Parts: sequence; C-alpha cells; structure tokens
Amino acid sequence: MGDATSIERRCGDRMRPKRIAILGSTGSIGRQGLSVIHHDASLSACALAAGGNWQLLASQARQCGAELVAMADQAAADKLRSELGGAVEVLAGPDSMSELVRRSQPDVLLSGVVGSAGLAPTLAGIECGATLAIANKETLVMAGALVMPAARSAGVAVLPVDSEHSAIFQCLQAGKRSEVRHVTLTASGGSFRDWDEHATAEASVADALNHPTWEMGRKITIDSATLINKALEVVEAHWLFDLSSEQIEVVIHPESIVHSLVEFCDGSVIAQMGHPDMTLPIAYALAWPDRPPRPAAPLDLPAIGKLTFRSLEERFVRAVKLGFEAIDRGGIAGAVLNSANESAVEAFLNERISFGQIVPLVEEILNRTPTMDEVTLKALTEADDWARREVETHIERMSSGRIRGR
Amino acid sequence: MGDATSIERRCGDRMRPKRIAILGSTGSIGRQGLSVIHHDASLSACALAAGGNWQLLASQARQCGAELVAMADQAAADKLRSELGGAVEVLAGPDSMSELVRRSQPDVLLSGVVGSAGLAPTLAGIECGATLAIANKETLVMAGALVMPAARSAGVAVLPVDSEHSAIFQCLQAGKRSEVRHVTLTASGGSFRDWDEHATAEASVADALNHPTWEMGRKITIDSATLINKALEVVEAHWLFDLSSEQIEVVIHPESIVHSLVEFCDGSVIAQMGHPDMTLPIAYALAWPDRPPRPAAPLDLPAIGKLTFRSLEERFVRAVKLGFEAIDRGGIAGAVLNSANESAVEAFLNERISFGQIVPLVEEILNRTPTMDEVTLKALTEADDWARREVETHIERMSSGRIRGR
Repeated sequence: MGDATSIERRCGDRMRPKRIAILGSTGSIGRQGLSVIHHDASLSACALAAGGNWQLLASQARQCGAELVAMADQAAADKLRSELGGAVEVLAGPDSMSELVRRSQPDVLLSGVVGSAGLAPTLAGIECGATLAIANKETLVMAGALVMPAARSAGVAVLPVDSEHSAIFQCLQAGKRSEVRHVTLTASGGSFRDWDEHATAEASVADALNHPTWEMGRKITIDSATLINKALEVVEAHWLFDLSSEQIEVVIHPESIVHSLVEFCDGSVIAQMGHPDMTLPIAYALAWPDRPPRPAAPLDLPAIGKLTFRSLEERFVRAVKLGFEAIDRGGIAGAVLNSANESAVEAFLNERISFGQIVPLVEEILNRTPTMDEVTLKALTEADDWARREVETHIERMSSGRIRGR
Repeated sequence: MGDATSIERRCGDRMRPKRIAILGSTGSIGRQGLSVIHHDASLSACALAAGGNWQLLASQARQCGAELVAMADQAAADKLRSELGGAVEVLAGPDSMSELVRRSQPDVLLSGVVGSAGLAPTLAGIECGATLAIANKETLVMAGALVMPAARSAGVAVLPVDSEHSAIFQCLQAGKRSEVRHVTLTASGGSFRDWDEHATAEASVADALNHPTWEMGRKITIDSATLINKALEVVEAHWLFDLSSEQIEVVIHPESIVHSLVEFCDGSVIAQMGHPDMTLPIAYALAWPDRPPRPAAPLDLPAIGKLTFRSLEERFVRAVKLGFEAIDRGGIAGAVLNSANESAVEAFLNERISFGQIVPLVEEILNRTPTMDEVTLKALTEADDWARREVETHIERMSSGRIRGR
C-alpha cells in the first residue's frame, strides 16, 4: 500500500500527495479520516479544525504534521496555542474554519462537523476549488440550493461520505445520470427497530444511543433511532444526484451490508455492499477517482447467509416522510427540517422532551415553514433561527401545559 | 421508447440505427434478441443465421427486414430460398455464418449459437470491426486465447450476454480494471439443487431439463444441472476480464436476483441485480454504452424479502473445479473441457450415459489434456476432435465393461 510507483500512478502528474483539510478532526469522521490518510502515502492532512477538544487536536496536528489548525472555542484555542508552542499556526473563533480553508487551499475538503456549522467553510472550499468530501449532511439538507449550483459553476466535485450516498455515487458509475430511474436508500432501522411504538415513545437517552450496527456520534445515532436520519438522507440524495422525491425510496435492511441501490431505465439494479465501516466511504471520497487498496476483510456472503429487506414500518413512515415533504416544499424547508430536528434532538438529549415527541415536533414546525421567494444565505440563517425559536416555544408550551395539567 | 429525440441522442452522430447480425436467430437468445431490436428503434437486424429451422427464419427475416440470411443445413436453405422467393439473399452450408458476417458488416455481432460453431464467425466479426455481443460462451472457453488478443488488437469491444458476465461487466464500471480484487459468480444451483447426490446420479433427462429459475436451451440447462455451466463461466470470466483463477469464486444464490458481484481493492463490493430475464443483458450488450429504457417491472426488494447465499455443496465442487483446472492448465485445456462436455451432454441426452457420469467423464478427459506449445485455430480444432473421440472411447469402454460385468 502506498509504494512509490502506485503513488505516482495514482496522483498522475502530481508527485506531491493530495492535501486534505479536515473540519471536525476530533469527531468520529475526522478521526477515521486521519487514520485513512495515515495509511495512504498519496494523501496528507494539511489543516485540521475542531470545536473544543484541544488536547486531541494538538496530538493529531503533531502526528500528521498539519500546517494550520483551527479551534472554534477561544479559550481552548489559547490552551492549544501554548501546547503547540508556535510549531503550528492556530486560528480561533467561530469563523476560523472558513479562514482555515481559505488559508490552506486544500485539494480536498473533508467536512465532518455536525450540524449547520459546516455550511460557511463548505462554501469557502468551493471558492478555493477544493473537491468536497461531505460527511456533514446538514450542509446539503439546509443549503443544497446554494451549494450544488456553486459547486457546479466552480467545476468542483461533491463527493458524499455518508455510506448510503457513497454507495449511490459508486453505483451511478454504471450508467449515465439521465439513465437513472430510481434510487433505494437502505436503513438499518436504528436502535428501536425491534421495539414497539409505545415502548419507543418513552425510551431513554441511553436506549436511543445504543445503535445495532453503526458506531457514530450522539446526534446522528438519535437521528437514526427516530429515522429522521433517513429523511435528511432523502433530501441529501435529492441535491447530490438531482433526483425528484418520486425517484427516491427507503427500505429497511437490518444487516447494513447493502448500502444503497440504483435502478437504471433498463431495469438493471446496481448495488454497493460492504461491511459497515465508515473508513471505506471516507477513503473512497479522499482518493477519488482512484480506489486505494485497503486490507479490508472480504465480504463473505455465504457466511452472512442472507440479506433481508422490508418496507418501512408504519411507525417510521412519519419521520421519513419529512424528507419527501422538505423536497416538495423546496425553498428553505430543508433548513427548517434540519434546524428543528437539531433543536429537538438537543432537547431530548437534555431530557426536556421524550423520544416520542421528537418527530411530531419537527413535523409541526416543518408544516409551518414560511414561504420564501429566494434561497439566500441570509434566508437560510433566518430559517435556522426561526425553526430553533419555534422548537423552544413549542417545548415551553408543552411543559407549561404539563404543569398546568398536574 | 425509441422516439426520434432519444434515438438521435443515443446514436450520437449516427442517424441510422445500429446494424445487428444475429447468429442463432431461431434459438432462445436469437429470438429474445430480435424482440429487443423490435422494441428499440435505434437498433436494426441486418442479417440472421440459423441451423435448420427454415420456417422460423423465413418469418423472422420478413418481420425484421433482414438483408441477408444463412442456414447451416443445405436442404433447409433450399426450402428457405423458395419460401422467401428471392426477396432476401440466402447463404447456405457450414461456412455460411462467417460469410454472412463478412458480407453484412454489422456494427454488432450477437452470437447466440450453441457450442464450438460460434468460433469462426466470431473471428470474422472481429475482422470486420464489429462489437461482439457474446452469448456463446463456448467460443471464449475454447478460444479465449485467440479471440481476446484479436479483439484487443482490432480495438473491438467484447460484451458478454450471459447474465453473470453482463453483471460483472456492469459492476466493473465502478472502478478501474487494475483495482479489481475478486469476482463472485452466482449460481442458482440448477435443477438438482435440492436433490441428494444419489438421486441426482440417476436423474432422468426430463428431470435435468426442469430448471428452477431460468428458461434456456437444452444443452445449457443440463450444464446448469451438472454445474459445469459454472465451470465454463469461470473460464469465460478469466478471459473476458483478465482474471486469475484465484480471483474468481462461485457462490450459490437460489433466488437468481444478484447476477454477480465485483470486489474492488478497497473492499467495496458492487453487485448487479434484476429479475431473471435474459432480455436485459441482451439489450445492454446491443445498445452499449447506452442503456435503452425498458418497461421492466421494478425490483421490489421488500416483496422479495430475502436474498440467500451459500457455499457450493461438496457434491457440486467437483464440476466447478473443472473451470479452475482449465484456467490453470491453460493452452488447449479450455477447448478440451468444452468439447468433452458437449459430447458427454449429448450422450446423456441420448440416454447413453447417466447424469452422474457426465462430470467424472469430463474430468477424466480434462486431466489427460495433451500439452501444446502454441494455441492456434488448428490446435483447437484438433483438441476438439481429440476430446470428442476420447468421450466416445470412454463411453464404449464403460458400456462394454457393463456388459462384461453382467
């Protein structure tokens, strides 16, 4: 892996490794991204940004030899600066991620931050002409209407890092975009796939964080348990692959082996499979259009025995429908869906609302999305604020109702 | 389907439809190929060749407006000539297929004849620069060492029409050839997948012709029951995709939905799926690199419920191993495997040997393959003759042994 000849071949004329900037380097995607880069001599991490974990960021920067780091939290940035002792330049503050992107001019921007914070640095990446490797699905859900046209006119490739969307992207190579009839996103079913509706509604935070197949961050594990994760992925697929809501379907596949499928206009279906392992889509996006050799255990289908598929259970349909609803509403609806959900999940993790209240709350707010004539960064920011305020108002109303009811 | 705009788009600069010559037009592949062409205005059948069914060939030629037809059987050709009354030129005799190819100069040659008869006209197709759509796997099994280099130096694409190899070809679009680690051919398991070894050994011709998922010709249905079909497909995959025997695996998949899979060097597995329907790989090969829209029923995975996979049962391993053995022996071994099998299957269909005798007989002859320094057309013809004579000798010896034993 990574001997001189293969690097030369894979990098073409470029003898230097591909420069990768990572947003959210201390999170799950960021750590796995660094591990991929560490094992592939054709890749190098040039810049790292994180929120507040200055100890881990310091050790990452030392290990990968980053030239530039950024820390959103100002106090943490000060500690990081003294820890690194001037060896690496440290940017600080809420806008430091965008500055990091502009200053480091990476070949590939791996965006692994959670939530709406990824949007501004992603737009900065497009301005720099960096290939986007997007694990931060909220960026596309909120602002696909801004990001995709900007990437197209800058000639920048947008590569999904989500396992489902990476699967679709790989399957699409087997035909032309105009030949795609239908896309099927698979869903593991989340932490509550075998629970009944009543028990699920009152599930604890610990229960919801116990995902059956994927090890992920807290927010995405909750999204996976509510199935709102699939609603977000539906919107993401709409933007990434220019699909209408009628062209997208969600199917439960508990084994998480088939990551997604594309049906072409001749009836041929192409599927991408693999062990549930996020380093595969990360490595694919970073090395694209090459596939770097990885010592992955082969997929032993006879040992797996069977792959099962079933339709979404009725109790999950409501959550997934939010994605189709957001596509059909258009405008700022994606931003409202995303922000309302971020706030509702936070309220659940803080034990302010029950698990069963998340989806109805998000639905209520999505259905009241104000109409907007034009999707601008300002409109999206306002939509974000509006949705978060609405969640607060609803929760207050619910809790005062509860208190009155006692 | 096939409106003027889409034809123009699909044919690019060529405003005229693609000209297709079909070898074996009255057989299963030929008839389905004509149906595909009939429903796609960007394709036209310019020339048809068949063995002896002059009535069907006459009606096919009239319906598709072929310019040229060929009939291997001389007497049948005479009847065809008088039936067509000079409206279409009729070639006759054993070499008529090659002449038909040379005279019609097709864009695509669909070879759906059974057995070794497909070799000479395939080589003629390469000389004409025709894209090869090969359903006749025997051509590659026997003479891959001649056909593939010839196609490469003529710049001619070789497109498989077998469902498994078409699947592999489609999956390969998701990466580079140098990035392929492994290929898995799926097998339905054939007519006897649920029979025990003892019952299978004494199975009747009617039992063996009763295939669970695919409707095919007699020879290929028997090959599917012995699993020698998979041995032939292993050799075919070796030649088509330049794979070593270690890179090829066979797995039983009774549902015949996943037609085959390719594992890339990063651990990503791409699979092609679809209903068992030969018109899909035929249409794909004829229209390639486009995918013509077809009104195929969507693949409803929740309705299918589960896809199962298991290793080859011990009693089938012996047959499939013949393919790996032929690859490893190289030279004329593929021709010996193919011809010994053709003769043995014929002997079974004529009730001269039992079902259980087919595989040991072919194995015995393959193991005695003479070494050849160079693979030439002459050497392959001699290997073909030798293997057929050996089968006869063995059968005679077995039956005289049986008589002596009584």
